[in-house]
Amino acid sequence: MTVSELGERALLARIRARLPKPPATVVVGVGDDAAVVSGPRNARTVLTTDALIEGVHFDRAFSTPADIGYKALAVNLSDLAAMGATPAWALLSLALPGGTAVEDVEALVDGLVGLASAQSVALIGGNLTSSPGPLVVDVTAVGTVHPRRVLLRNAGRPGDELYLSGTIGAGAAGLEMLKAGRPVGEQRINPAAETVAIGRYLRPEPRVKLGRALADARAARAAMDLSDGLADAVTQIAEASGCGVEIDAAALPIDEGARQWWNARNEDPIVRALAAGDDYELVVALPGRWRGRLRHARRKVADPPLTRIGVLTWTRHEYVVVREGRRERLPGGFEHW
Amino acid sequence: MTVSELGERALLARIRARLPKPPATVVVGVGDDAAVVSGPRNARTVLTTDALIEGVHFDRAFSTPADIGYKALAVNLSDLAAMGATPAWALLSLALPGGTAVEDVEALVDGLVGLASAQSVALIGGNLTSSPGPLVVDVTAVGTVHPRRVLLRNAGRPGDELYLSGTIGAGAAGLEMLKAGRPVGEQRINPAAETVAIGRYLRPEPRVKLGRALADARAARAAMDLSDGLADAVTQIAEASGCGVEIDAAALPIDEGARQWWNARNEDPIVRALAAGDDYELVVALPGRWRGRLRHARRKVADPPLTRIGVLTWTRHEYVVVREGRRERLPGGFEHW
Repeated sequence: MTVSELGERALLARIRARLPKPPATVVVGVGDDAAVVSGPRNARTVLTTDALIEGVHFDRAFSTPADIGYKALAVNLSDLAAMGATPAWALLSLALPGGTAVEDVEALVDGLVGLASAQSVALIGGNLTSSPGPLVVDVTAVGTVHPRRVLLRNAGRPGDELYLSGTIGAGAAGLEMLKAGRPVGEQRINPAAETVAIGRYLRPEPRVKLGRALADARAARAAMDLSDGLADAVTQIAEASGCGVEIDAAALPIDEGARQWWNARNEDPIVRALAAGDDYELVVALPGRWRGRLRHARRKVADPPLTRIGVLTWTRHEYVVVREGRRERLPGGFEHW
Repeated sequence: MTVSELGERALLARIRARLPKPPATVVVGVGDDAAVVSGPRNARTVLTTDALIEGVHFDRAFSTPADIGYKALAVNLSDLAAMGATPAWALLSLALPGGTAVEDVEALVDGLVGLASAQSVALIGGNLTSSPGPLVVDVTAVGTVHPRRVLLRNAGRPGDELYLSGTIGAGAAGLEMLKAGRPVGEQRINPAAETVAIGRYLRPEPRVKLGRALADARAARAAMDLSDGLADAVTQIAEASGCGVEIDAAALPIDEGARQWWNARNEDPIVRALAAGDDYELVVALPGRWRGRLRHARRKVADPPLTRIGVLTWTRHEYVVVREGRRERLPGGFEHW
């Protein structure tokens, strides 16, 4: 059997089954947004790695080298944000085709370093090698977290309310707009909304401050970032937490440009936005009685807004979206194969 | 200009020139075998990343999936060993062509986990993605080190003696033996020596215990691992330390199989072994008066042997090998483009 026949999630399960029991220094191992280890003197280090690969995650016709460098770091910082961690350091592993222009490599590094500096992250090392095929940009991001403030995927409880940061759908719709080309003629939506959506695809903003504020205020029980879509994220939180999940379709904060774009194509914005990848928002679960803590965190970080989108339920393995009174199964997330 | 026209080392210099001044938490940044950061409570974390790419670093005709997984971790542990660090954790980022067999992925993970377990390293996370081209295995290895025992590349001083662990040449010769095919007929060398050389290519042993023993005994001033060859390593130590270097050709511990292999092909074993990549030995610099400390470290870790191969000199930018009284410039190291 090949990996494309098996699928990404099943492959990950197979790999996890082969790993020995982790030692006591591993506070959070494989299976969350990032790993947490306990170093000397009880320091907590949070580590994550994520790669962008030409032809899979980006097309050089749409993304500039600087966009690629920016996003390679952004997707990693998003994982750290989902743990409530403070990012501090990054490693950059580049596999470059021999014909890559030197100025493109410099621009890629500039794009990455620009975001790194804005987030007080230092690029401390990495690796350079040649690639016989695509450009590969693999980043490892490392941060720190207070031992008792780690946001885990599996810490949700039935009855917890689910909150989502920002809006969804812009990343996927932005990519579709780029693929459709400019000018898109009759199908063109509001140009300002299009620019926003494309910008969110090219340069998603990792919710680092929000994640940290939620962790510091102990306002979130479970958290995850949306890299493979909202439906996937809430399903994974529910599954890891041993709960079901119920999403309120009417509450979903769908990006305005994405909504216009999909409406103009007779596609259902709710279905598309639920399954769309490339949104780097946070979804968090907390009991209703923690709303005061949530307000406290919001006083520190007011942007992006948080929207209550549903609840964790007592019915394990039931992952539904409620839409005009009908209960539908949540769509699956993005799989690489 | 393309990266292959510029070359790897010049590209790295261009990238380094674009990085802002690192913050105080960065004890060792870009340019050594690994990075060292200072975390909460003054804990020292050592981080390195290195990728193996199909068609560049391995050929699936020669390396089994388990060999590839083993080596992907081994080359990273070698970098940690060169810092005197104790490896503790690893992240694995895999880019897999859709047609990859699931059992090959499992075998790759098993190969990596086998070495990890032997070295008390836990695989704590990673990333899975598809690849439209080659199989990419990118590993980040993380360890800890005592703040005052970090082995740096730039800490050598003129007059320091250079010691090399184990032997050189086996990795490169082993790969040539594999490429020549089996049976190699007339050109076949001693079969046992061939097996050793091929084994050193496929499964190099990172010198973790030795690196730590040298650091603990404060027996090394500067250290580096040999991934791009001995000539490259001693040149880089000398350059970073503001010294010259003089290597004694007669002292070089060339692997017996590699020597036979190159002699049978009328190639000069000394020239080949100096420039050969794929040896994961350590080279360390220490003043003569530290020999007692070196003996102390050797009592803890007797294997592999250490050989005195030369000295750091007062003449900056002069990197020579002395051979039967003649002084020749050291060859360059392996460059990816």
